[in-house]
Amino acid sequence: MSEFRLDIVSDRWVIVAPERAARPTDFPVEKRRARDGFCPFCEGNEDKTPPELFAFREPGTEPDMPGWRVRVVPNRFPAVRPDVPAASREEGLFRSIAGAGIHEVIIETPRHALSTNEMDAAGLAEALLACRLRMAAAAANDRRLAYAALFKNAGAAAGASLGHMHSQLIASPVVPHAVLTEIEGVRRYRAEEDMCVFCKTAEEEGRIGDRVVAESNLFLAVAPYASRFPFETWILPRRHAARFEEEDDETLGDLAQVMYTVLGRLDTVLGLPAYNTVLHTAPFAMRDPDDYHWHIEIIPRMTGVAGYEWGTGVHINPVPPESAAEALRGEKS
Amino acid sequence: MSEFRLDIVSDRWVIVAPERAARPTDFPVEKRRARDGFCPFCEGNEDKTPPELFAFREPGTEPDMPGWRVRVVPNRFPAVRPDVPAASREEGLFRSIAGAGIHEVIIETPRHALSTNEMDAAGLAEALLACRLRMAAAAANDRRLAYAALFKNAGAAAGASLGHMHSQLIASPVVPHAVLTEIEGVRRYRAEEDMCVFCKTAEEEGRIGDRVVAESNLFLAVAPYASRFPFETWILPRRHAARFEEEDDETLGDLAQVMYTVLGRLDTVLGLPAYNTVLHTAPFAMRDPDDYHWHIEIIPRMTGVAGYEWGTGVHINPVPPESAAEALRGEKS
Repeated sequence: MSEFRLDIVSDRWVIVAPERAARPTDFPVEKRRARDGFCPFCEGNEDKTPPELFAFREPGTEPDMPGWRVRVVPNRFPAVRPDVPAASREEGLFRSIAGAGIHEVIIETPRHALSTNEMDAAGLAEALLACRLRMAAAAANDRRLAYAALFKNAGAAAGASLGHMHSQLIASPVVPHAVLTEIEGVRRYRAEEDMCVFCKTAEEEGRIGDRVVAESNLFLAVAPYASRFPFETWILPRRHAARFEEEDDETLGDLAQVMYTVLGRLDTVLGLPAYNTVLHTAPFAMRDPDDYHWHIEIIPRMTGVAGYEWGTGVHINPVPPESAAEALRGEKS
Repeated sequence: MSEFRLDIVSDRWVIVAPERAARPTDFPVEKRRARDGFCPFCEGNEDKTPPELFAFREPGTEPDMPGWRVRVVPNRFPAVRPDVPAASREEGLFRSIAGAGIHEVIIETPRHALSTNEMDAAGLAEALLACRLRMAAAAANDRRLAYAALFKNAGAAAGASLGHMHSQLIASPVVPHAVLTEIEGVRRYRAEEDMCVFCKTAEEEGRIGDRVVAESNLFLAVAPYASRFPFETWILPRRHAARFEEEDDETLGDLAQVMYTVLGRLDTVLGLPAYNTVLHTAPFAMRDPDDYHWHIEIIPRMTGVAGYEWGTGVHINPVPPESAAEALRGEKS
């Protein structure tokens, strides 16, 4: 029997409908490609990307040459650009802001790794350090920017044009609706219960255990109660913190371990599914650190999104998060 | 140069980024299949669906036999079921409602039409009449239900498992977030401007003309200013009306003409793209008809949705709605 479940932070319903998993079209796992042809992100091909903005490199190696471990370059097809003059227009119903911003690619490894399973946790930790650094730089260098979105597309079905593991950063002059909605939810819960709803979620989910995918001292990976997608997994800091970019090296090292475990299990258990990871962190100008709790959402892209979902925002999820968590916990040590 | 644009009803930004259309992966149009194998929706195969709930039939023909023009059957893999006892639970963070509801399929034509171009406007009008009737029945027969979502999935990439033209109805005990958000936007605009924001949009877009795709006396089809998807098109009643299911036959006949034109042009101009259509109408219990303005959203599924979109709700759209409307206006008479 199916069930409506509420995400109380975003005030959004989902339908968990396990019966529909019988539908043959529900699980054509869109596997990631085994090999690209030529890859501009591989070590040795540095001249095939725009000049690098930052890299962790071996001592004595030059920018845009081999010898790097993590490399950050501008996106070749940017959605926003830093050199755009600030301009906004408002004419009745129609409001716009010029596409100013930063769109960068964080290449996570010099090797042609198509899965975190071909990397190691230390490499992932350095990639997270590079992301933190570029987010802080975006906030500091361009006062017009209001929010930095960090995300990863893995596999063509998740929007990736290249298989080589990489993340992207888009910093924009607008604060996204999804984050504003969550901030509202955090404030609403605090007004009622005098505590952070994400802190409470980490505590409760850790205690219940059914939806826990992995954990460490500092983080809990959980298949959220109102999962929109099969095998959706959130990584929550156990300790309250509004901003990813203010976390210290040790915390990011611990996060890398948990992400390495979770992404590795996804790839092993589901057989290289397409997925997205997205960081939710506080807007640059948010004053009260009580108002948000940063976290990472991992969204495997195994089921399509149809008219009902686009029309209503209510996702139909054929895999109960309790079953997803059990499957993800069971495999690989 | 790209541009952020605001949908002032849903308070949601998009990035219109025409430069990105240069990216080769942006337009692998996911064409709909030419032919299914066996089709349970075709006339003559009535015994391959659950028994019909309603049909427009030739005089003297029996239920579940040939002779119908539009046929409504229960969904074989329902997301919700009518025979589920009402039950809701609230335990701290976790709130659920049993999956009670109605999930029906409206088969729009007895012929194996894979495009509205293989139907006629009169057939589409009868399909809309059947939808109206089933929505009214859902509201009247099960007092637990709060909202009826009517939508169409065309093409596998849009979530359809069968190519034969059909719509679906899901009536649920919850009001979807997307509709609540729009109601909030309608109220906000009315508080400021003392008029309906959708009425104003139809009026302004009709006057400006750049984004108009098609029009009739009663409806305006427009590529919305803050389109999330390439070739997204909304059909707005020009006259204020909160509820689709209260429109009369003449109005639905006029709507069918406009939908027939717009969907036909989409198929002709873009070459049978996958698409969704979704009706947005007032929740059953909404009291004040000023609070909403029903409309139909048509969403071609030509571009994937990647991590940035899932993470932020901000869609990157490579085709400005002005170009989309021009292309859709230009073809087919």
